[in-house]
Amino acid sequence: MKGIADNDFLLRTETARELYHGFAEKQPIIDYHCHLNPAEIAEDRRFDGIGELMLAGDHYKWRAMRSYGIGERFITGDADWRDKFRAYAETVMYAPGNPLYAWTSLELKRYFGIDEALTDKSADRIYDRCGELLASDSFSARGLISMSGVETLCTTDDPGDSLLYHEKIKDSGFSVSVLPTFRPDKAVNIRNASEFRAYMEEHNIDSMGALCGFLNDRIGYFHAHGCRLSDHGLERAAFVSGDPEGPFAKAMRGEKLTSAEEDAFITYMMLFLGGKYAEKGWCMQLHLGPMRNNNHRMFERLGRDTGFDSIGAQVDLFALCGLLGALDAGNRLPETILYSLDGNDNYRLGALMGSFQEAPFRSKIQLGSAWWFNDQRDGMEAQLKAFANLGILGCFIGMLTDSRSFISYPRHEYFRRILCSVLGDWVENGEYPRDIGALGKIVGDISYFNAKNYFAFG
Amino acid sequence: MKGIADNDFLLRTETARELYHGFAEKQPIIDYHCHLNPAEIAEDRRFDGIGELMLAGDHYKWRAMRSYGIGERFITGDADWRDKFRAYAETVMYAPGNPLYAWTSLELKRYFGIDEALTDKSADRIYDRCGELLASDSFSARGLISMSGVETLCTTDDPGDSLLYHEKIKDSGFSVSVLPTFRPDKAVNIRNASEFRAYMEEHNIDSMGALCGFLNDRIGYFHAHGCRLSDHGLERAAFVSGDPEGPFAKAMRGEKLTSAEEDAFITYMMLFLGGKYAEKGWCMQLHLGPMRNNNHRMFERLGRDTGFDSIGAQVDLFALCGLLGALDAGNRLPETILYSLDGNDNYRLGALMGSFQEAPFRSKIQLGSAWWFNDQRDGMEAQLKAFANLGILGCFIGMLTDSRSFISYPRHEYFRRILCSVLGDWVENGEYPRDIGALGKIVGDISYFNAKNYFAFG
Amino acid sequence: MKGIADNDFLLRTETARELYHGFAEKQPIIDYHCHLNPAEIAEDRRFDGIGELMLAGDHYKWRAMRSYGIGERFITGDADWRDKFRAYAETVMYAPGNPLYAWTSLELKRYFGIDEALTDKSADRIYDRCGELLASDSFSARGLISMSGVETLCTTDDPGDSLLYHEKIKDSGFSVSVLPTFRPDKAVNIRNASEFRAYMEEHNIDSMGALCGFLNDRIGYFHAHGCRLSDHGLERAAFVSGDPEGPFAKAMRGEKLTSAEEDAFITYMMLFLGGKYAEKGWCMQLHLGPMRNNNHRMFERLGRDTGFDSIGAQVDLFALCGLLGALDAGNRLPETILYSLDGNDNYRLGALMGSFQEAPFRSKIQLGSAWWFNDQRDGMEAQLKAFANLGILGCFIGMLTDSRSFISYPRHEYFRRILCSVLGDWVENGEYPRDIGALGKIVGDISYFNAKNYFAFG
Repeated sequence: MKGIADNDFLLRTETARELYHGFAEKQPIIDYHCHLNPAEIAEDRRFDGIGELMLAGDHYKWRAMRSYGIGERFITGDADWRDKFRAYAETVMYAPGNPLYAWTSLELKRYFGIDEALTDKSADRIYDRCGELLASDSFSARGLISMSGVETLCTTDDPGDSLLYHEKIKDSGFSVSVLPTFRPDKAVNIRNASEFRAYMEEHNIDSMGALCGFLNDRIGYFHAHGCRLSDHGLERAAFVSGDPEGPFAKAMRGEKLTSAEEDAFITYMMLFLGGKYAEKGWCMQLHLGPMRNNNHRMFERLGRDTGFDSIGAQVDLFALCGLLGALDAGNRLPETILYSLDGNDNYRLGALMGSFQEAPFRSKIQLGSAWWFNDQRDGMEAQLKAFANLGILGCFIGMLTDSRSFISYPRHEYFRRILCSVLGDWVENGEYPRDIGALGKIVGDISYFNAKNYFAFG
Repeated sequence: MKGIADNDFLLRTETARELYHGFAEKQPIIDYHCHLNPAEIAEDRRFDGIGELMLAGDHYKWRAMRSYGIGERFITGDADWRDKFRAYAETVMYAPGNPLYAWTSLELKRYFGIDEALTDKSADRIYDRCGELLASDSFSARGLISMSGVETLCTTDDPGDSLLYHEKIKDSGFSVSVLPTFRPDKAVNIRNASEFRAYMEEHNIDSMGALCGFLNDRIGYFHAHGCRLSDHGLERAAFVSGDPEGPFAKAMRGEKLTSAEEDAFITYMMLFLGGKYAEKGWCMQLHLGPMRNNNHRMFERLGRDTGFDSIGAQVDLFALCGLLGALDAGNRLPETILYSLDGNDNYRLGALMGSFQEAPFRSKIQLGSAWWFNDQRDGMEAQLKAFANLGILGCFIGMLTDSRSFISYPRHEYFRRILCSVLGDWVENGEYPRDIGALGKIVGDISYFNAKNYFAFG
Repeated sequence: MKGIADNDFLLRTETARELYHGFAEKQPIIDYHCHLNPAEIAEDRRFDGIGELMLAGDHYKWRAMRSYGIGERFITGDADWRDKFRAYAETVMYAPGNPLYAWTSLELKRYFGIDEALTDKSADRIYDRCGELLASDSFSARGLISMSGVETLCTTDDPGDSLLYHEKIKDSGFSVSVLPTFRPDKAVNIRNASEFRAYMEEHNIDSMGALCGFLNDRIGYFHAHGCRLSDHGLERAAFVSGDPEGPFAKAMRGEKLTSAEEDAFITYMMLFLGGKYAEKGWCMQLHLGPMRNNNHRMFERLGRDTGFDSIGAQVDLFALCGLLGALDAGNRLPETILYSLDGNDNYRLGALMGSFQEAPFRSKIQLGSAWWFNDQRDGMEAQLKAFANLGILGCFIGMLTDSRSFISYPRHEYFRRILCSVLGDWVENGEYPRDIGALGKIVGDISYFNAKNYFAFG
């Protein structure tokens, strides 16, 4: 019986196997976008068991369990971890083709040496075995990160964050570089009027000047803490010229803005911030297109990021192109990574990125790694093929986890295997010569070196 | 020479073969959505020949013949059936990669034992052989349904229908359960103003109250006749709050409604009906996105459903999400199947369904089986992969024919083979263990048991 | 080591190999849409070296080089050809999965007999070898076209063009038929107001009557020169009824038109021209959806068609359907080829084409060959599958180069190999019988005969 997560998992061809084992497997990980909680790293959090470790914060798994018909008590409720893990085991058994199947298998195997499939029958046995290991010192938050081969990881942080935990981590001598990412959504997303106003009040901001000054100061502060990436979550791209002062004042008075006013404000802020990022040599990440908190009942009960989001608007290419073009025209376009939640945007964004490439950068504009609902083999293959067809794949900066979990690093392995398989298929098909040296260089670059060179980490 | 519709047709791997022959092949069929005419079942219609049986009502085949350049006389005109069948044979020869090729081969083989390919040369021989069989008693409408292994089939019916034929079929002791489906398009689609008004007049409906009362009564009547599904054909989803009375009155006076008025009326009706379906334990099917009757000349000549429709608007996710969310917030969201005519919507709808899953249902919201222009191997594989990546594939309720033909049931075979092949590929790739028991359970569930459990048939 | 562009390049199955070598390889080429400069054919241009031949006008390659991080001096600047070629060699090495890799390999092999891969190490050697051959008489523009097996090629020409070079080519006795294509974008695209007005002034057109008269005259002139195709590049389809006179007058006065006025004018022109094309037995090509000149800095520096375009709006199906329907209703719908720059439109357009098919034409409406950003193996396979699933693939008119280069003809080979592979896969899968005669007929038709029959070349 062919197993899961075997040595040659996903490696369909001899070329793929040679590339993965020779050039990908051993590379360190630069996880340039994740949602780990820096406090938990600073405090080196411990976990009671595999149930808590796997299920406490992972809305992908919650969503899967709801789909399978598991009651909320066993998902986010007060059932005990063992019972929740059993419920998850049953769910995942019925989920062939879901990335959770592969991720779970890899997580159990790489961290806990579990070779058998997770099923209703094996759940208890696996729970116990993992529990023993988690009781040992090396299975703390930092221990898990370290044993994953991570060199650098970038958390996602609000501009107002003190970065105290990042300082603590640095001071602790932890061997992994844990850097902040500047994500000013609350200061930009005027569409969410009440959150926006509350944020301004929290930071005593009462004018556009004060807002820009605040963000500029925080960019400096983040930069001093090693930050080299920003990140923006945008429901949709905006590019509408217009005065931002009026909308700002209106929002602060609690009046409803028109869509055009919202767009004008957001456009202004993105042009301002994009230019600052370019000055600092930062990379700008744009995450486009989610539709959030769709389920009102569950939002009331559980709050945000609990598994009730979905794909929203496809990218407005005219707006996005306008924004990039305006930054570029002023020589203020930073390195930019474009992510869309809608996989149909792969070629749209891939074609757009080609319009703003410029020496000396290698793929200054990047089509981001398959994101969220697309973060599975089919989605990754589609992203890789779009990047390859429309750009220079050898310049791709590769994978990130985008995760809240300390054991999600095997997704880099998953990605690297898929990358090698895609390359192997092209060789098989006669589309690239079987030149292992040339291909190995590309594999190593995408796995590690491109990210290292692309980001200006200190 | 590898044949068509062989024992291992479409089954690429050993796993696929074991799964299909062991767990799928023998399952009964629950055809929960079709367009068979209940009168023809009640009267146990007979067919003059394979030409009439295959070509009399199948606009997929008409469309193919027009594409090939066959004159209308041999499609919907007065040419005799043998000549029409010859023309179809020539068409299908030139149609590799078209699902009609597979369907036709399967239909000829499964019902008539024809092993050879349909070509211009074999057409007459096949016509004669099928004619002999069709002359025998077992090849009536009911005979064909019975020999297909159908357990339950659901027709598609207007709320005003007397369901007399359904009663007759039941009284006749026909072993197959033939149930109505409630499809109130004429009472909801106020966009088609003249048809809407005519419908209201036909049923003496002169107010919103009367309309809702009428539909509520008919839901009760359909329920008593075993109906457990509704179906809505929507050009596009609507979610606009507003008074429905004004638009209703305006439509009844023959005045032109604004788009917002149409949307408000439709939203109101969908919220009203959705709630009723939830009360009754019915499933709500939403078929979204066709553009109909594109060819004005041919519409004048042949009327609707004659092969001149196409893919229209992609799903408006904000409207659809709003509608589902509003029903859910009132605890009035029924089991729902989302179908879009645009295959690009697979992931959009698949992500959306995850926001409204809830115990104790297993995938309360379903991404519908590949529909119409997507009802072919590529479309089915794409739908299965989207369902699997975004939900729990083991909870999928599987295939339906959506057909007007008495010999379309091999599409269930076609689907099951494709399902087994997709699963086999994942095993081959190491993405799921080669656990034939676990996989066989999933195959059996998707082929038959999930639909049986999902629909509350009496 | 498996090589590139080998005998069995891309031919995955025995069936594919038999079909390609038996039925595709030797067919002549009808390149019914390209952007070759007729002056260069008339003057039988010579090339200094492979650098100039490959890189002087190919914005696909420029774009790739920018993506790789090559400085503009080595792309469009004053670096010498050898250095540019070296830079391109390094770029292409890092571009597995990019169609440039396959095209470059095929171009070097078919014209220059180069078997080794183009890399930074082989670049000089290859440069020298190609240089020797390019110095010989047979490697002129006409020589290159002739050795490619071209029978007919269609350039892309403005209505105002004198067609002098086409006459010269004809008079010269060149064995390849070089025909003009009527592309009246400057006379139709009122959205580009300044270019539109300049065009009217250039041709002394001061009224709608004069405009229609001018175009009608030029259609006659082009027809007399063998033209049988038109081509329209449309940012987006328009179908808005309304008076064209007002918008025309307004545009001529330099006033800004509303979007509805632009649409009404364009709709009028497309209906007028479509009807004329139908009268003449011409084919109408619609190229939909690009977004152009995105990079303002580079547009100022290099002008248009220099590699800064991308995918824009997806097709407005309601507008396009309305336009085709209005022409059809008046019996004035010509043979039409629908191309969209957005690959997501494949099924949308494929379904739409089915609504306007009509005898005696074989696929009167065609889903155009994968275009521009889609012109690679993935895009071609997707287009072929969409055509096959929704139409009769045996009626497809096949490939075109859409190229500005004299050595782009191996793209026909590339396409034919992909076609044979797709057919081979279907046979392998049991979806079409292994009937080499029937399949070979289809391959020959798509490679050559369908185009020959579809276009009314003299």
